[in-house]
Amino acid sequence: MRIAVIGLGLIGGSLLRALAAAGHDVVGFDADPSTRDLAREAGFRVADGVREAVAGCAVAALAVPLPILPEVVADLDGYGGLVTDVTSVKGPVRDLLAGRRFVGGHPMAGRETSGFAASEAGLFEGCAWVLCLEPHGTDLGDWLLLAGLLTGMGARVVPVTAAEHDTTVAQVSHVPHLFAAVLAGQLGASPLAGALGAGSFRDGTRVAATRAELTAAMCGGNRDAVRDELARLIGELTRMGAALERADPVEALVPLLQPASALRRAWPPRPGPTETIPADIDRLLELGRSGGWVTAVNGTELVGKRPETDRFLP
Amino acid sequence: MRIAVIGLGLIGGSLLRALAAAGHDVVGFDADPSTRDLAREAGFRVADGVREAVAGCAVAALAVPLPILPEVVADLDGYGGLVTDVTSVKGPVRDLLAGRRFVGGHPMAGRETSGFAASEAGLFEGCAWVLCLEPHGTDLGDWLLLAGLLTGMGARVVPVTAAEHDTTVAQVSHVPHLFAAVLAGQLGASPLAGALGAGSFRDGTRVAATRAELTAAMCGGNRDAVRDELARLIGELTRMGAALERADPVEALVPLLQPASALRRAWPPRPGPTETIPADIDRLLELGRSGGWVTAVNGTELVGKRPETDRFLP
Repeated sequence: MRIAVIGLGLIGGSLLRALAAAGHDVVGFDADPSTRDLAREAGFRVADGVREAVAGCAVAALAVPLPILPEVVADLDGYGGLVTDVTSVKGPVRDLLAGRRFVGGHPMAGRETSGFAASEAGLFEGCAWVLCLEPHGTDLGDWLLLAGLLTGMGARVVPVTAAEHDTTVAQVSHVPHLFAAVLAGQLGASPLAGALGAGSFRDGTRVAATRAELTAAMCGGNRDAVRDELARLIGELTRMGAALERADPVEALVPLLQPASALRRAWPPRPGPTETIPADIDRLLELGRSGGWVTAVNGTELVGKRPETDRFLP
Repeated sequence: MRIAVIGLGLIGGSLLRALAAAGHDVVGFDADPSTRDLAREAGFRVADGVREAVAGCAVAALAVPLPILPEVVADLDGYGGLVTDVTSVKGPVRDLLAGRRFVGGHPMAGRETSGFAASEAGLFEGCAWVLCLEPHGTDLGDWLLLAGLLTGMGARVVPVTAAEHDTTVAQVSHVPHLFAAVLAGQLGASPLAGALGAGSFRDGTRVAATRAELTAAMCGGNRDAVRDELARLIGELTRMGAALERADPVEALVPLLQPASALRRAWPPRPGPTETIPADIDRLLELGRSGGWVTAVNGTELVGKRPETDRFLP
């Protein structure tokens, strides 16, 4: 299949490599001429503009940062193929692409490095790749086409609505980036903090090294969900602060810490047995909500897995 | 030198192994008979009580959890050797040991596993080990004896006061454990969170797997500093939440995230050249405050290093 990848940073560059490795006919484009040169030197066909890149392609994958997306979408006027994206917020992108053949996606494969130079074909092997599915409004054929492409690269395709995606990534990715930033900011307080920081500090702050503009675009693009989840977690931290004021702070803290300790030890969940899932929007959304994912697409039947136990249920 | 290690969990067990590997004559004790059996099976001499363990030892290292420390200290009545400890709070322990030959310590080498079975001789190789030093009240000879023992195991000995230690570890270790717990607690909200959690979630929550009782004892034992630092960081998270409400949330967030991003990329700092430091309490405390550490003790002269640059200074 002929596929265009627009934007050749860490994610777009890795997607170009992975699709090529899976045998697809890929063409890339990046607004930065030096990135285009890098991709050409790596042996890829690279166009000099969005229109040239997508001409004749069955799929156009937009791998540009959220703030750039509107101008790239404007360049797609006249393109009749299927469009997908990789940005970390799905509601606003769904609205931006309304009226087009579009299925939103989001690979959970970020890292603190960036740029084509950091890209690799294996980045998505085993990674969860959200592929948005709305009870009304998604063309199931388009969804299956992309699910086949992505599972063909080794990704675990997770079917969820844009709204469910945005709430959940605020929880497991966007707010963790803000937490990491305020923890890392403590390095400014004293050189001693830098000397005593060990494992909990190293891991708890790793993603704070992400470029501030990327983290801000990610969180700002999902502002409603991030604000709500952040407020909820600030409430939990405040409860922990109150426990520290109690007569026996240790006894008061234990019940606040115990559920998280048990949940984290049980994460990631072990996959259960392989299942066959019909190509049905409601059945696929139920799979996603139960923590499951699609591993392969065979015509109109899908192969999936879900966690072995329901211990993550509330 | 003959040294007793009381408490043979991850830290105590590793200390027993590391001191033995450095050629010392070690004896261990643990209140749990099955842990004593494990240590004996590993080839160590293990006493059946605290008094028996410390008899004739030049140093007694207490590696028990903070809540147990008072009863172990009571068992030291009549012991005239030097006492040290490894607990993660130093002010309360200094007060508990007042009137004894005592120098408080804290290796920054925790991990989410625990118990003698997880111990290893190399745990402290290159790790920062706080060794408390008070302008009035620490016997410098005792401090140098321990600094020599610890640097002999490959630890970087950081000289700081108990108060400076308690504030700094609240920042770089205790509050990060609370942050990890509230992030991991989100796994209870939906199975989807467990499916979409990727790198930022994995690392940001790693230490949430620590036993709740240990995290509670650590934070509760350092309640004043943890409460203050937690309140300060809740304030910063609240400012980020307010930035998300602004007309341009991305623009509002960037300046809040940028310092942390730069600080984290520059961490850990590269060590500067080796220095000779006189055995002087004020000079040693200055070394610790500048982010430096002792790497060796040669009689009354110490060898140290500090960060190559002062970019962590406010």
